[in-house]
Amino acid sequence: MIQEDKTIKALQTTSAGGFISDDAAVLPNVDVSNRYVISKDLLVENVLFRATYFMPEDLAHKALHVNLSVIAAMGAGPLYILCGIFIPSNLQDYAHRFLNALTATCQNVGIALIGGDTTTSKDRLFISIKAIGTAPESNIKYRNGAKASDLICVIGNLGFAHLGFLGLEQSLTTDVKYINSFSLPEAKMKEGIWLGKQRAVNSMIDISDGLYISLKRLVSSAGKHAVLDIDLLQSHLNHDVSVQVALEDGENYGLLVTIHQGSFEELSHKFMESFGYDLKVIGYINDGDWHIVRTKR
Amino acid sequence: MIQEDKTIKALQTTSAGGFISDDAAVLPNVDVSNRYVISKDLLVENVLFRATYFMPEDLAHKALHVNLSVIAAMGAGPLYILCGIFIPSNLQDYAHRFLNALTATCQNVGIALIGGDTTTSKDRLFISIKAIGTAPESNIKYRNGAKASDLICVIGNLGFAHLGFLGLEQSLTTDVKYINSFSLPEAKMKEGIWLGKQRAVNSMIDISDGLYISLKRLVSSAGKHAVLDIDLLQSHLNHDVSVQVALEDGENYGLLVTIHQGSFEELSHKFMESFGYDLKVIGYINDGDWHIVRTKR
Repeated sequence: MIQEDKTIKALQTTSAGGFISDDAAVLPNVDVSNRYVISKDLLVENVLFRATYFMPEDLAHKALHVNLSVIAAMGAGPLYILCGIFIPSNLQDYAHRFLNALTATCQNVGIALIGGDTTTSKDRLFISIKAIGTAPESNIKYRNGAKASDLICVIGNLGFAHLGFLGLEQSLTTDVKYINSFSLPEAKMKEGIWLGKQRAVNSMIDISDGLYISLKRLVSSAGKHAVLDIDLLQSHLNHDVSVQVALEDGENYGLLVTIHQGSFEELSHKFMESFGYDLKVIGYINDGDWHIVRTKR
Repeated sequence: MIQEDKTIKALQTTSAGGFISDDAAVLPNVDVSNRYVISKDLLVENVLFRATYFMPEDLAHKALHVNLSVIAAMGAGPLYILCGIFIPSNLQDYAHRFLNALTATCQNVGIALIGGDTTTSKDRLFISIKAIGTAPESNIKYRNGAKASDLICVIGNLGFAHLGFLGLEQSLTTDVKYINSFSLPEAKMKEGIWLGKQRAVNSMIDISDGLYISLKRLVSSAGKHAVLDIDLLQSHLNHDVSVQVALEDGENYGLLVTIHQGSFEELSHKFMESFGYDLKVIGYINDGDWHIVRTKR
C-alpha cells in the first residue's frame, strides 16, 4: 500500500497533470454526435517479452501502440490511457522506468495518462493497459460490417516484426526497419481516423494478432466468407517475407479493412495521396465458402 | 490465441448480449449534464486469495464489488464492467467459473459486461477489472474537497471483514455476517449515489484499502489535517473489533465522507431515514496538525 502511494506520487511528478489522485477518472463529455471508444484490457506478462529485447522504454512504446492500434481500428482517435501494474520487488527499477516512459510517450502523442494502479507482485511483472478514444458515431467502424464483394485490404507492412524478432533472437545483422517494426511498432492512428471517415469502408479490424486470424474473425463476425488471393498477397511482400510469415506474424499493428468494390479505385487513390503508400488488396468477401486461391496459376 | 477465441465464445454464450466482439467497446453518450466515471484498474493476483476461501463465484462477487465501491465513492452509479484475465492452464475451470459468475453477478445488479480479454498465462491467475459509471457532473464527489471543520464520517461496518477472515483462517465458528463481510462484501452503491446528491458532502473516498490509509489520503489530497477521535471511533465498533483492526482492516467496502458541520444533523437524519443505519462520526477536518485524540479522557 505504501508502495502504491510512492509509485503514484512518482507518477504524479512525472506526468503533466494527467494523473488523477482519485480511484476513478472522470471523463469530460464529448459532443452529442461523438462516442467514447474503450479498448479491452491489454495484459502484458513478463514471460511475453525478454528484458534483453525490450528496454522498459521500448515496452512502454509497444504497450501504448498496441492499444492505439485497437482505437485506430474503430476509426477513432485516442484521448486517454489507463494503466495498472503488478511490480515484483526485483523489477521496481524496470517498472519505474516503464511508467516514466509511458508518461513521456503519452505526452509525445498528445494523450493523457489519466489513471493507474500499482501493486506489489510476488515475482511477476504484469501490466494492464487500456486506451480511451473518441469518434463521431457515424465514423465508428466495426469488424462485423463486411459486405459481399467488398475488397479486403491491408494497411501496413507484413512480416517486418517477425524479421526484426528473428534478427534479435539470432543476433543477426537485420535491417533497422525490421527491428523497429518489432521493438517500436507504430499504430496506424492517422490512417484509422481517415478510414473511419470513408463511407466505402464497411469493416475494420487491427491485425496485431496476425493477419490470418484477424481476417478469420472479421469474416466470421460478419457471417461471411473470403477469397484470399495468395498471389496478390505475395505481390505486396518484401522478398524476404514468406506468405506464411505474412499471414501469421502479429505485432505489425497494421489494419485490415473491407471496402465497397465500386468505390475502391477512388478511395485507394485518395489513400495514396494522403499517406504515400498503397492499400494492399489481398482478396474479397463472398457469401459462399472460404477459399484460398492463387490467381496466377 | 485459439484459447482466447474459445473463452470469448464461451462468454458470449453466457452473457445476455453484453459482450462485445470488437476489441473496443463503444459507449453511448450520456446526457450533457452527466459524466462518465472510470475506475482505475483493479488487479487481482492469485496469491492474494486462497482457493479454499474463495470459490470462483465469491471471487467474482468480491472483484465486482470492490470496483462498484470505487464508483460509489465518486457519487456515481455503475453501468459497465470490463474484465481481462490471464489464465494458467491448470486454472481454466476456475477462470471459466469466475467469468460465468461475473457475468451473472453483473446481470443481477443490472450492469453490462461490455468487454474482456483472456490470455493464457504461464502459471498465475491474474484478473484485471474496471468499472464504468455515470453521474450528473454536479453530483461527482472527489477525495480532495474536504473543508476545515467538516465532520469525518464512515458509512458501513468496520472490522467485520477482518473477523470473517480470521474465522476462515483459523477455522473458527464465526458469525455469518463477518464471513459475508469478507467473502461477499457489498459496495455501498445506493449510499454513494445518495451522498453524491448532498451538497453538504464535501469529499468522499472508499475505504477498501483500510480506514486509516484512506483518511490519510483524503486529508492529504485536500491539503488539510484531521482530528481523529479514538473514543468516538470506538463507540461505533462491535465489542469484538479493536480500534486497530477498525483502522487497518480493508475489504469492508465502506465509504468515508466529510460533511459540512452545520448541515450534519439534518443530513444524518435523512441518511438514517433512507438506509436504516447511522453515519458514524469519527472526527473532523482542521487546517492545523494531524491529531489523534481521546475525547473521553
